[in-house]
Amino acid sequence: MSGTMMTQALTTGSLIAHAETYHAGTEVVSVETDGTKSHSSWGEIGANARRMKSALDTLGVSDGARCATIAWNNRRHLELYFGIGAGGRVTHTINPRLTPEQMIYILNHAEDEVLFLDRTFLPVAAKLGEHLKTVKHYVLMGPRDDEAAQTVEGLLFYDELLETGDAATDWPDLDETAPAALCYTSGTTGNPKGVQYSHRALVLHSIGGNQPDGLNIAARDVVMPVVPMFHVNAWGVPYIAAAVGSKLVMPGPHLDGESLARLIDAEQVTLSLGVPTIWMGLLAGLKATGIKPTSMKRTVVGGSALPPSMIRDFRDAYGVDLIHAWGMTETSPLGTLNQLLQKHDRLSADEQARLREGQGRPPWGVELRIVDETGHELPRDGETQGELQIRGHWVIESYFGQDDSALTMDGWFDTGDVATLDEDGYMVIRDRSKDIIKSGGEWISTVELENIAIAHPKIANAAAIAAHHPKWDERPVIIAVAAEGETPNETEVLASYEGKVAHWQVPDRVVFVDELPLGATGKVLKTKLREAYGNILLEEV
Amino acid sequence: MSGTMMTQALTTGSLIAHAETYHAGTEVVSVETDGTKSHSSWGEIGANARRMKSALDTLGVSDGARCATIAWNNRRHLELYFGIGAGGRVTHTINPRLTPEQMIYILNHAEDEVLFLDRTFLPVAAKLGEHLKTVKHYVLMGPRDDEAAQTVEGLLFYDELLETGDAATDWPDLDETAPAALCYTSGTTGNPKGVQYSHRALVLHSIGGNQPDGLNIAARDVVMPVVPMFHVNAWGVPYIAAAVGSKLVMPGPHLDGESLARLIDAEQVTLSLGVPTIWMGLLAGLKATGIKPTSMKRTVVGGSALPPSMIRDFRDAYGVDLIHAWGMTETSPLGTLNQLLQKHDRLSADEQARLREGQGRPPWGVELRIVDETGHELPRDGETQGELQIRGHWVIESYFGQDDSALTMDGWFDTGDVATLDEDGYMVIRDRSKDIIKSGGEWISTVELENIAIAHPKIANAAAIAAHHPKWDERPVIIAVAAEGETPNETEVLASYEGKVAHWQVPDRVVFVDELPLGATGKVLKTKLREAYGNILLEEV
Repeated sequence: MSGTMMTQALTTGSLIAHAETYHAGTEVVSVETDGTKSHSSWGEIGANARRMKSALDTLGVSDGARCATIAWNNRRHLELYFGIGAGGRVTHTINPRLTPEQMIYILNHAEDEVLFLDRTFLPVAAKLGEHLKTVKHYVLMGPRDDEAAQTVEGLLFYDELLETGDAATDWPDLDETAPAALCYTSGTTGNPKGVQYSHRALVLHSIGGNQPDGLNIAARDVVMPVVPMFHVNAWGVPYIAAAVGSKLVMPGPHLDGESLARLIDAEQVTLSLGVPTIWMGLLAGLKATGIKPTSMKRTVVGGSALPPSMIRDFRDAYGVDLIHAWGMTETSPLGTLNQLLQKHDRLSADEQARLREGQGRPPWGVELRIVDETGHELPRDGETQGELQIRGHWVIESYFGQDDSALTMDGWFDTGDVATLDEDGYMVIRDRSKDIIKSGGEWISTVELENIAIAHPKIANAAAIAAHHPKWDERPVIIAVAAEGETPNETEVLASYEGKVAHWQVPDRVVFVDELPLGATGKVLKTKLREAYGNILLEEV
Repeated sequence: MSGTMMTQALTTGSLIAHAETYHAGTEVVSVETDGTKSHSSWGEIGANARRMKSALDTLGVSDGARCATIAWNNRRHLELYFGIGAGGRVTHTINPRLTPEQMIYILNHAEDEVLFLDRTFLPVAAKLGEHLKTVKHYVLMGPRDDEAAQTVEGLLFYDELLETGDAATDWPDLDETAPAALCYTSGTTGNPKGVQYSHRALVLHSIGGNQPDGLNIAARDVVMPVVPMFHVNAWGVPYIAAAVGSKLVMPGPHLDGESLARLIDAEQVTLSLGVPTIWMGLLAGLKATGIKPTSMKRTVVGGSALPPSMIRDFRDAYGVDLIHAWGMTETSPLGTLNQLLQKHDRLSADEQARLREGQGRPPWGVELRIVDETGHELPRDGETQGELQIRGHWVIESYFGQDDSALTMDGWFDTGDVATLDEDGYMVIRDRSKDIIKSGGEWISTVELENIAIAHPKIANAAAIAAHHPKWDERPVIIAVAAEGETPNETEVLASYEGKVAHWQVPDRVVFVDELPLGATGKVLKTKLREAYGNILLEEV
């Protein structure tokens, strides 16, 4: 049928090509693994990414091959995002905090042909080497280093490899559904599962997720992704920054509050993104250094629940707007972002604050629903809790290497979260569905119970778990770590629940421990706690 | 290959569905053709659009059929955008300022099955009726009107038709490359040509064109598209507003400055879009009414060159930021938008102002280049003029009903404009390539010559044309209309060019006329002027 519009493939190559053509001179600042700071530009990043694509061709790496990275947020890692992925291969980012066994599993499962490593992780390569079945090339992300060359046989050096490449290489024409990136979830049970991002999904996530009510990144912005590039593509920021030509600041290995405060000040960062613990650290770092982050307007926070007080602390002390967002490895990750509507201006400051503590609403491109255990949709009344499901242009369909669909029969991805939705689609995560406590047919959110325990001045950290109960099936138990120098007792902690939750939601017990077991992404391993304390109420009966 | 992301079709139905789900209560305000103001919401717009889709099914209108509209910017027209286009048919908007002959040609060429008309244009339908070969249904966009029923046999009424539809109708699953909308260019020569927008192009234009450096429309915005919905989909604003859930204000038929000033004030408009003449009128309207448009932050201006003084007038008197944009019917339309980069902060106020007078740079999604007459790319130095070509996700490939590609051999669309590009891709339109004056091998921009003439206090309007010349091939001649009560002479007008252009660029003659011939979109018909005055220099020699 005549009367058509151009159909070009949506590829990540088009993102870096845009940055190269229209923002060649815009800076990319990077803290390197040795602590030095490098200054380059989108023009240079693009040229090096093209060189890397060409060098991998020359090296004989297959088209479409997975190439792994174990690296910090830095310039070379950014070049690899495009040099590998936009070049027709798959950028496979690996979380360095995984155990060696998990890394071996992942590298063999993905059949990676190349492994790129920052200097920090060279010992890892030496340890994994003999167990890896498909990796043909190890590349140290830096200049030649004779000492390092001793530890891994045939070790290549990034800067030398680059020199074999041609900066005039064209970005290849690719099918937009071809894969560009791969990231494994660090499941707390079972083997990690790989999410393979198509070019189309990454591009639609970049422009769909960067609407004015989304990440809202403009060319004038100076963006510092503290969220790691090995964790869901640093929330897509490297791709978005290329698409709009913003200045990027890559913080490298030192993510303590003082280092970040100095970097924000030196580079005039306007927007940063990361998990709540990073911003806890930054608050302390700002206090310690006396730095006022005057350039910084906004911080996007996700990855785990945002302590309500933190929003106030940043706004009142520094005028920084903390924006709560939610997503998963399986959702590229942007699922929701919390920007209020005009009608919310009529709410009281307290009501607005409460709304901002939630995870926000989805942008065009993804849809949310909550369902009961039989899959029936539940009302969007802000109160009914249900299993959260999502679908959209940047949501997984099937895990890497698995033939089965990862979706429900009617095509939604079950997030494993329990949430509420209000009439405008504002979502609040109430719990992980495997964590929620089912007491006498009612659901009790562990997140809420934990927040109350953590707010107690004598408590440093706490987790709520479901303990088996002969009458109620499950009842809440708090596993708590005392604040330094404090020795809280069970009664006073339980007393703090009074008036804050319904009587039947108050935990049955508080157990004090020295520390909580943490997984590779810093989350509390509740499975371990349940193994240890899940029968505590049965034993007592 | 396993490891995939969901692939959903990019359809305009997904845009309105987003607004219905997440912004149901957000207002849509409309000035109706009878002058009354109506208040509805995205929830109601969506429900009515679904009703219209269902009613057209019942009426027996074919799947994929073109359905024409001749209408102002109002609520019913908005419902038709989605009721027709998202429902699997093609919304064919027609410019009411076309001649009856052009309308007959277009309606027959598009083979429209239905013609929707605002009350204003009912006489048009009565006149065209017997010449139209394919239109089966005429629908008056309003309630039953017995007087109107007399003038067109079998006339249907929008509000009655809606009542036959089902608001629970699903948006159909469509191929994303299927057409959703159709708009004919009003060529000054030859028959009008139709540009048929695919769902994919409209959706990518909506989210790609609405980045923070693009139209930048958020849910909190109150957007008033003064640019007509019959002209390149009101620059895509109805689709974008649905995608982000902003409040819409549709100004209806009264586009004089005072009406607009009152509407901006009453509805607290934050952003408006239109051609320069509209904002000339608004400036006068604001002065006449004494209204301060305090809610209005930005105005996007395109369609023809922006008088430099207007940017200053709006900023200095009202704090409104005038943003210059450029596009064409063939480019959906957004090609460029003028937001400065951070590095431009270092420029002087004058240099910044000069940059802002240009058309700006393209967002990700479209690319620009300039070429010479043999198709070779020219340097991006801000000085070299060349034929402007564009390609991208929302650019035409072939005109409606034409089998031939509309593109160059290597896949670019030739805009017919002559422009410069600087190293950052900032584009300045220097002329239409058919208007530019080729004098002794050098190109002289008519836009520049016209701006100088119009700036003369005794001149109301002016056009520069190429007149044949025995020695130089072509030389510039100014056709001017005197300001009211003034009788300028040729010598004083020519004197005003001194020091502003090179000596050889000064026009050879100034001819005074009572008025300039205008086309359907308000542009000066230079072809007519050239017919009348193109030989004036030959005659004199």
